[in-house]
Amino acid sequence: ASPDKSRTTGIELGLADGRVYASYEDMAREEAKLPADERIEVVSIVTPNHLHFPVAKVFLDAGFDVICDKPLTTTATDADELVRLTQESGRIFAVTYNYTGYPMVKEARERIMSGAVGTVRKVVVEYSQGWLSTLLEAEGQKQAEWRADPARAGQSSALGDIGSHAANLVEYVTGLRAVEMFADMGTLVEGRKLEDDAVVILRFQGGARGVLLASQVSTGERNQLRLSVYGTEGGIEWSHEAANSLRLKSAGGAETVLHSGVEGLSERAEAHTRLPAGHPEGFIESFANVYRNVARTIRTRADGTEAVPFMEDYPTVEDGARGVHFIEQAVESAREGRWIGDGI
Amino acid sequence: ASPDKSRTTGIELGLADGRVYASYEDMAREEAKLPADERIEVVSIVTPNHLHFPVAKVFLDAGFDVICDKPLTTTATDADELVRLTQESGRIFAVTYNYTGYPMVKEARERIMSGAVGTVRKVVVEYSQGWLSTLLEAEGQKQAEWRADPARAGQSSALGDIGSHAANLVEYVTGLRAVEMFADMGTLVEGRKLEDDAVVILRFQGGARGVLLASQVSTGERNQLRLSVYGTEGGIEWSHEAANSLRLKSAGGAETVLHSGVEGLSERAEAHTRLPAGHPEGFIESFANVYRNVARTIRTRADGTEAVPFMEDYPTVEDGARGVHFIEQAVESAREGRWIGDGI
Amino acid sequence: ASPDKSRTTGIELGLADGRVYASYEDMAREEAKLPADERIEVVSIVTPNHLHFPVAKVFLDAGFDVICDKPLTTTATDADELVRLTQESGRIFAVTYNYTGYPMVKEARERIMSGAVGTVRKVVVEYSQGWLSTLLEAEGQKQAEWRADPARAGQSSALGDIGSHAANLVEYVTGLRAVEMFADMGTLVEGRKLEDDAVVILRFQGGARGVLLASQVSTGERNQLRLSVYGTEGGIEWSHEAANSLRLKSAGGAETVLHSGVEGLSERAEAHTRLPAGHPEGFIESFANVYRNVARTIRTRADGTEAVPFMEDYPTVEDGARGVHFIEQAVESAREGRWIGDGI
Amino acid sequence: ASPDKSRTTGIELGLADGRVYASYEDMAREEAKLPADERIEVVSIVTPNHLHFPVAKVFLDAGFDVICDKPLTTTATDADELVRLTQESGRIFAVTYNYTGYPMVKEARERIMSGAVGTVRKVVVEYSQGWLSTLLEAEGQKQAEWRADPARAGQSSALGDIGSHAANLVEYVTGLRAVEMFADMGTLVEGRKLEDDAVVILRFQGGARGVLLASQVSTGERNQLRLSVYGTEGGIEWSHEAANSLRLKSAGGAETVLHSGVEGLSERAEAHTRLPAGHPEGFIESFANVYRNVARTIRTRADGTEAVPFMEDYPTVEDGARGVHFIEQAVESAREGRWIGDGI
Repeated sequence: ASPDKSRTTGIELGLADGRVYASYEDMAREEAKLPADERIEVVSIVTPNHLHFPVAKVFLDAGFDVICDKPLTTTATDADELVRLTQESGRIFAVTYNYTGYPMVKEARERIMSGAVGTVRKVVVEYSQGWLSTLLEAEGQKQAEWRADPARAGQSSALGDIGSHAANLVEYVTGLRAVEMFADMGTLVEGRKLEDDAVVILRFQGGARGVLLASQVSTGERNQLRLSVYGTEGGIEWSHEAANSLRLKSAGGAETVLHSGVEGLSERAEAHTRLPAGHPEGFIESFANVYRNVARTIRTRADGTEAVPFMEDYPTVEDGARGVHFIEQAVESAREGRWIGDGI
Repeated sequence: ASPDKSRTTGIELGLADGRVYASYEDMAREEAKLPADERIEVVSIVTPNHLHFPVAKVFLDAGFDVICDKPLTTTATDADELVRLTQESGRIFAVTYNYTGYPMVKEARERIMSGAVGTVRKVVVEYSQGWLSTLLEAEGQKQAEWRADPARAGQSSALGDIGSHAANLVEYVTGLRAVEMFADMGTLVEGRKLEDDAVVILRFQGGARGVLLASQVSTGERNQLRLSVYGTEGGIEWSHEAANSLRLKSAGGAETVLHSGVEGLSERAEAHTRLPAGHPEGFIESFANVYRNVARTIRTRADGTEAVPFMEDYPTVEDGARGVHFIEQAVESAREGRWIGDGI
Repeated sequence: ASPDKSRTTGIELGLADGRVYASYEDMAREEAKLPADERIEVVSIVTPNHLHFPVAKVFLDAGFDVICDKPLTTTATDADELVRLTQESGRIFAVTYNYTGYPMVKEARERIMSGAVGTVRKVVVEYSQGWLSTLLEAEGQKQAEWRADPARAGQSSALGDIGSHAANLVEYVTGLRAVEMFADMGTLVEGRKLEDDAVVILRFQGGARGVLLASQVSTGERNQLRLSVYGTEGGIEWSHEAANSLRLKSAGGAETVLHSGVEGLSERAEAHTRLPAGHPEGFIESFANVYRNVARTIRTRADGTEAVPFMEDYPTVEDGARGVHFIEQAVESAREGRWIGDGI
Repeated sequence: ASPDKSRTTGIELGLADGRVYASYEDMAREEAKLPADERIEVVSIVTPNHLHFPVAKVFLDAGFDVICDKPLTTTATDADELVRLTQESGRIFAVTYNYTGYPMVKEARERIMSGAVGTVRKVVVEYSQGWLSTLLEAEGQKQAEWRADPARAGQSSALGDIGSHAANLVEYVTGLRAVEMFADMGTLVEGRKLEDDAVVILRFQGGARGVLLASQVSTGERNQLRLSVYGTEGGIEWSHEAANSLRLKSAGGAETVLHSGVEGLSERAEAHTRLPAGHPEGFIESFANVYRNVARTIRTRADGTEAVPFMEDYPTVEDGARGVHFIEQAVESAREGRWIGDGI
């Protein structure tokens, strides 16, 4: 946003003098001119939402791979455009739905895909925070300011910022796509411009039912993301507050609790675990798993380095676009008070 | 249902020979003829739902106090009739929403009423079971048979059997009344005649928002009832799986965990606790708290025994009737796919 | 202790006038004179420890069955005498180590006996309370007064009151008998006459090792009793704070969590469970299981009522005596600072 | 151990060709010859235990700062020698007791130091693992091989490898030094040369009592380290399995649960937390906190960079030496079956 600040930060980070740019447009243009072995390998976009699209577009156009925060864009049209550009350019485009980077989330996916709960019938996912229980955006808190500002956050706050994580988590773990939804969105803090509380009732392909809760005004909740999936044969539960564990629920009522690093886990989970059982890993490592997989994919394509198992297990631009459609349809459903059902 | 079986059971229970009756009508009529100090003091109705109304009516008409299982009746009309009869007769009529009998549920109520979470803005309540994940009613299981049969259970299974507990729990703990709802009900087990999964989005007086989940097909869940209430200042959480504890969530993120029997609890909670802290009490004691309070109320009215603090803390016929209206409006909302909002 | 108080209490309890006695000696003598179908069936001794022996002896001598609180007596000599009297008289003598009444404790026993953890190698049991963190016995608190008084409690407070429960729990669940011990006992509250904190290192038959912790000055602990048993193949953990659950630990690190009422439990556990899975039972029901089994045993012997499976699953006078020897040897070991090892 | 392997690994790590050395002696000597701004800043010793001393000595002698794994050495004599060399040389010497790097462990220390539990009276610390439940060292598992080999591990396995962490944790959190101990050590897996299970009864300065459990044969335990501290006013509990939380226990029985990142934590805890509340951090970050503090201390001394608050909060060579004395005295106590009490 500010060339001066860019310069200061760049120097602090130890970047070469000529490679601290006044704008992202400059950066894309100038980096592209450098020889292949000198230029940046990938750009990582961690700006407020409204900048995701223009920045990603410029770098895609300049021939770079992209890693972008979620939600991918503020409109579905922009999201579709990025999908198109990515597909045409053949670039790699990852979206940092980092919760899918947790090994026990990956184990949940593997268990469900291999039939551990039978046919999925019911999904409950909740992402509750309390940090916006007051009008924090009026107090100069930067993270709150842009997230509560339609011009920068887009058309949604609770669903855009955390609900989209929850929706992606359901897709990743169950493989199901929602085909119909009824959303209810509300603003519980007076003076706020976007919704801070939402519930979305979902129908999935094949008839499974779901409920998604997202709230930024659940006062006292720190960052509670939890997912329960129930099928014909059993259930499975993952909670971010016990991120290194996974609970399998048998129809008879007994439970099995798996922990990262224990025996009997899938190769996918093992490939994303760094430490022996009983040594907790956290949020940073979940992000690292996304970035590492993207890096391996880029490296393999770039210089023919041998493919590493599961290196393509990262969220793509298509996942990101589906998330934006989810938000946009939820906003429409909530505004009109009716089911939206033309495929999400 | 069967006079013969009635007789056998009565004898096993050690009832006097002349007081085992062939029908509830006989029982009401004959007991009423006995002198006041010999006749039954109260009748307790623990039949399938469709019999609650006729049995309760007969005993009210015969001048007896009544304790009745939930849901109070299978139609709102019947429920309203029982309210009218109770009010006219001046009898005591209790409904066994037993979860309100837990001391830590009472503590939750006291804390919220005294402002511990500020103004309530958001309620999430979930009651999930997995026992009807298969078509159990087709296998001769008696509890499943009548609960899944519209002729005996009424118009709802998941909401009627467990959702009504959840709705009552919200009312008891928060004091809020729902004024609008959007319900979605589904049947996930093929061949079942009533819904086994439901979600209800709620609006309360004053603008608070709520979500109520009730499911009998959450495979692997035993009897998971949990309630979260969030206000302007904090949150509060009670879970039946840790029934002797209560979590208070501060806006800053730290929690206080109260346990039954610890210092600093309300008089209401203490009056419903039998054992020192650390000695778990359970489901039976929660029921006992409802019955004991009703018994004390009856005794006080009957013979002028001194009133005991909190003895009127039991669910009434009005609470029961509100529960039936809740079910009936949810069924209507789900059938029509629209908000119902004329006060519940 | 006071004939007057006895009389008042007896009347309050609704006892027949002629059957409220001035002393336990009177009671034993007079009740024994009544016809068999009128006299008491069993006596339950819930006095301070020093009275267990004389009361039990009088009632055994008068031909009655006995249920007695733990520790059985204040000296091993007295305990051995009660064992002898019981064996000679053929009476039933139960000791209320009530924690063995929990269904999931019984399940733990069944699992270990059937090899779920392989050969037991290691046991850790802890019983921690904080209620005696201050000199409560000096403030007129009756429960503290007698427990801290050597004349009434015997030679130990922490081990006598709660450590003996822990020792019995280990014996019940593992079937192992300790053969050697090193005890360390301390008094952490100034002015207290008995130990309020103890640790006992144990050796069991066959070479298994154990540690028993008992403390009444673990400030903030309510009533934390927990047991971990480790064998060659796995581990098992039960905690009183989650009394309805049992954790089985596999060698590979995954856990299975069983809950009372779920499918796949032993007949022994099922026979001591009243409610479906997910409906918590508590301390009262654990006591009730001990009393019910004793009652069934007495009834069967008395009138030939058919034996009920597991009715003899209650702690006996021999279990009680072993507990007193345990205390006495621990006191000796702690006093002399050496291993005691002549079989316990 | 192998110059060839050293070379291969060095190249893989991208080290400059001339700086991959055949031995640690070469490395110390050659690096010392480089100009100050080119040579290594610090050496990190992560070898089996028996090499800690010779490697540390060589690098200290050559004028380098040292970071070393625990236990510091295999004999107390060697440990004392390193303390002496460090003090004489003025070098920085850190020992990676990484559990003290967790922010909530630091919060525990701050709370206790500021009187939250009153005067400490009782400490229970347990470190239980199950990974050595079989004779893993005979199966070629490298981590087990050297840990179970007296020539490389030293005189203890369970106490040396994990018990020393537990002992350090107690010292760090309570500030107490043990002055007397009674240890019991056993080998539960046949064929093993060192103890795999230990219990140590402790007396601290001022009369507090403690118990330390360390086991490598608690089959099914992953890495269970937990600490409870009880004082005159309350208790505090930290468990590695919920590393981001801390439980404060009030004398009345209610608990407060703190989480990393919540409001109201000490500056010390905040300074060692990277993420907002609800975003779990793990084992790697705990290690990173130790390394970061050492790095800051080295940097400040080297170039006068401004001191950062809490940068000296890392375990020192003195802490490491005390840990070795602890092990050595425990071995002696266990061998002789008596209290050892000349200050630890």
